[in-house]
Amino acid sequence: MRLLCPICQGERDIDSFVYRCDKCDEPLEVQHDLENLKERLSPRTFEGRPWNMWRYSEILPVDADGRISLQEGGTPLHWGTRLGEKLGLERLYLKDETRNPTGSFKDRGSSVGVSKAAQLRANAVGCVSTGNMAASMAAYAAKAGLRSLVLIPTGTPVEKMVQTMICGSALIAVRGEYPETYRMGLEASTKHRIYMVHSDAPFRVEGQKIIAYEISEQLGWNSPDRVLVPTSSGGNISALWKGFKEMHQLGLVSHVPSMVCVQAEGCSPIVASFGSGKDTVHPFAKSDTIAQSISNPDPPSGRRVLRLLKDSKGHALSVTDQEILEAQRLVAETEGLFVEPASASTIAALVKLAKSSVIRRSDKVVCVLTGSGLKDVKSATRLLKKPIEIGSARELENVLSQT
Amino acid sequence: MRLLCPICQGERDIDSFVYRCDKCDEPLEVQHDLENLKERLSPRTFEGRPWNMWRYSEILPVDADGRISLQEGGTPLHWGTRLGEKLGLERLYLKDETRNPTGSFKDRGSSVGVSKAAQLRANAVGCVSTGNMAASMAAYAAKAGLRSLVLIPTGTPVEKMVQTMICGSALIAVRGEYPETYRMGLEASTKHRIYMVHSDAPFRVEGQKIIAYEISEQLGWNSPDRVLVPTSSGGNISALWKGFKEMHQLGLVSHVPSMVCVQAEGCSPIVASFGSGKDTVHPFAKSDTIAQSISNPDPPSGRRVLRLLKDSKGHALSVTDQEILEAQRLVAETEGLFVEPASASTIAALVKLAKSSVIRRSDKVVCVLTGSGLKDVKSATRLLKKPIEIGSARELENVLSQT
Repeated sequence: MRLLCPICQGERDIDSFVYRCDKCDEPLEVQHDLENLKERLSPRTFEGRPWNMWRYSEILPVDADGRISLQEGGTPLHWGTRLGEKLGLERLYLKDETRNPTGSFKDRGSSVGVSKAAQLRANAVGCVSTGNMAASMAAYAAKAGLRSLVLIPTGTPVEKMVQTMICGSALIAVRGEYPETYRMGLEASTKHRIYMVHSDAPFRVEGQKIIAYEISEQLGWNSPDRVLVPTSSGGNISALWKGFKEMHQLGLVSHVPSMVCVQAEGCSPIVASFGSGKDTVHPFAKSDTIAQSISNPDPPSGRRVLRLLKDSKGHALSVTDQEILEAQRLVAETEGLFVEPASASTIAALVKLAKSSVIRRSDKVVCVLTGSGLKDVKSATRLLKKPIEIGSARELENVLSQT
Repeated sequence: MRLLCPICQGERDIDSFVYRCDKCDEPLEVQHDLENLKERLSPRTFEGRPWNMWRYSEILPVDADGRISLQEGGTPLHWGTRLGEKLGLERLYLKDETRNPTGSFKDRGSSVGVSKAAQLRANAVGCVSTGNMAASMAAYAAKAGLRSLVLIPTGTPVEKMVQTMICGSALIAVRGEYPETYRMGLEASTKHRIYMVHSDAPFRVEGQKIIAYEISEQLGWNSPDRVLVPTSSGGNISALWKGFKEMHQLGLVSHVPSMVCVQAEGCSPIVASFGSGKDTVHPFAKSDTIAQSISNPDPPSGRRVLRLLKDSKGHALSVTDQEILEAQRLVAETEGLFVEPASASTIAALVKLAKSSVIRRSDKVVCVLTGSGLKDVKSATRLLKKPIEIGSARELENVLSQT
């Protein structure tokens, strides 16, 4: 197992606190000895193991006795029959990442990242985040008995940070812009041995790639045709693609899917680059969307996403906030799943794609529902109707007779 | 399988829309043919089956092809090593019901109840609830394609109902008191074939008893010594006790645990009756606690809870809101689990009991953490500190050097 830059192939110490290539400014990646593993692994290897992320221990970079786990992963892949019927899709699947310990997919990466930090005897773990990542990291740090440190912009509403703060994270509110805050965090990291677990950190990516392994096993060790992923920094879609590629190289699946990158219109720098055929991403000046979990205007894994879209014959598209809210309600009303706006963006994208020639009726399609609707209850109120008000059994009778 | 009154043993039609004995005013219960099942079941029966609630299909009253499921149950039983160390308990376990589809234990009962409603071709499912039960029922009704109807008091804040409304439930706000609203619901139920899935409905109880089966299997088919359950209507602690008793009668476990009923001081009618040795519960005039999920001042299963506390050599105690909030933070900081105030009440109770002679250091203790902290973010903000504010790398340096 080695830590490499995917561009220059330069190697870094696997125990390094730095995770971007200083030459290419690309996130480093963990490379497993796939040739060797290929001889040892087959679908049968995993049979009978507990249904959580660590089922695939051979391709995870943490030893069994060093795991910090809250039983992440092993999430359901729902067959979306009622939603599929509405959209004219026969094989629509919903990967329900809301079922992770803190309510989002981030827990997979936090588990691996915090485990690594504990193994390295880091002084603390840290990140810059006001959302799912901070909450997730805080929970795993608590479980590990490790300090955790979260940098946020000043003025962040305290309600957004409750899930993080209650686990004992130290919150540091920084007056200033995000890029400066991010840089500060990275500098403090090496000096104070604070292990950063950002979205493109290699050990986080290792945890998150397991979403791909689970999807394929849940489909009987078949890869889907299309996988739709809400995209912000680009860390998660990159992780899924890494998982699918690895499985293909390991001979566990016969093909890789085509990846679909979904962004909110108000924060869609990767979609813009994809549309104009560029191989670099020009940051948006600011983000303007209700989908807070996909609102990074300067995606640190942007180039990596453009490469994987090319490699996977993929697609990128954006959806409006209105489309997102309607999709959020649609998936709740048809499948009983209450997901956050970022997750609903994949359903909104699917509504569009199902009408186009990009996706066919018989395609095996997976939407990755990354986080729980309980994370942001306020935005969901916008499209809801008021209750009917009654004062007597007779009025109830009237309502019931009419509806 | 029969539907019986536990007091007069009178039998009702298993397909009835009524679930209380009209003679004794007690909730009816499903009785399985345990003698027959005993010959067929052993711990090995369940080996290798998927790890969710339906693993125990033989003792669930719904056929496989009639299941409305979002993959409920199969929740983790965390070994609370760090919390246990703080409290001086060596074998403390936390049953993490926050991991269910809508974030609470209610999903087990909703799955069974809504499945039954679908089998009976009910016109709708319904309940009176402003909390976890409504949200859970709404999700399962959506999955089933069944209408759902929720009665709430007028003036209920819409934020509390978002998770319910987004799944398409019809909300009816009733001007009037809870008992009157409850009665209205029951009357409408039989007339309009609306299947009610309240907390003490027999089919809900069947789903929720599975918490007990899972705990015992997770402990290697051993029952714990003590089980602490947050208690409101009394439906859930009754369900757990039914599960433990059944397993004992089936020969799956060698003993039953002692049950501990935990209530919030501001809404503790069962604790009051237990303390004065009564066998009926005198309702509280009103409820006054932040723990909304355990705030029913007139528990419909109150007498049943008093009976089970006697039968299990159990205990009942109340905790203050301040103790609940401190316990909520304690379990988050030590175990990384963010639970709602009702769930934290069991930890608060444990803090007290661990200092007394009721629980010994070596006792095998389980706290049932019934729902996610994301259900009520506001109450958790009360004990949190403000972030540290900085404006430069130098100030960050100062903070890091000092902490």
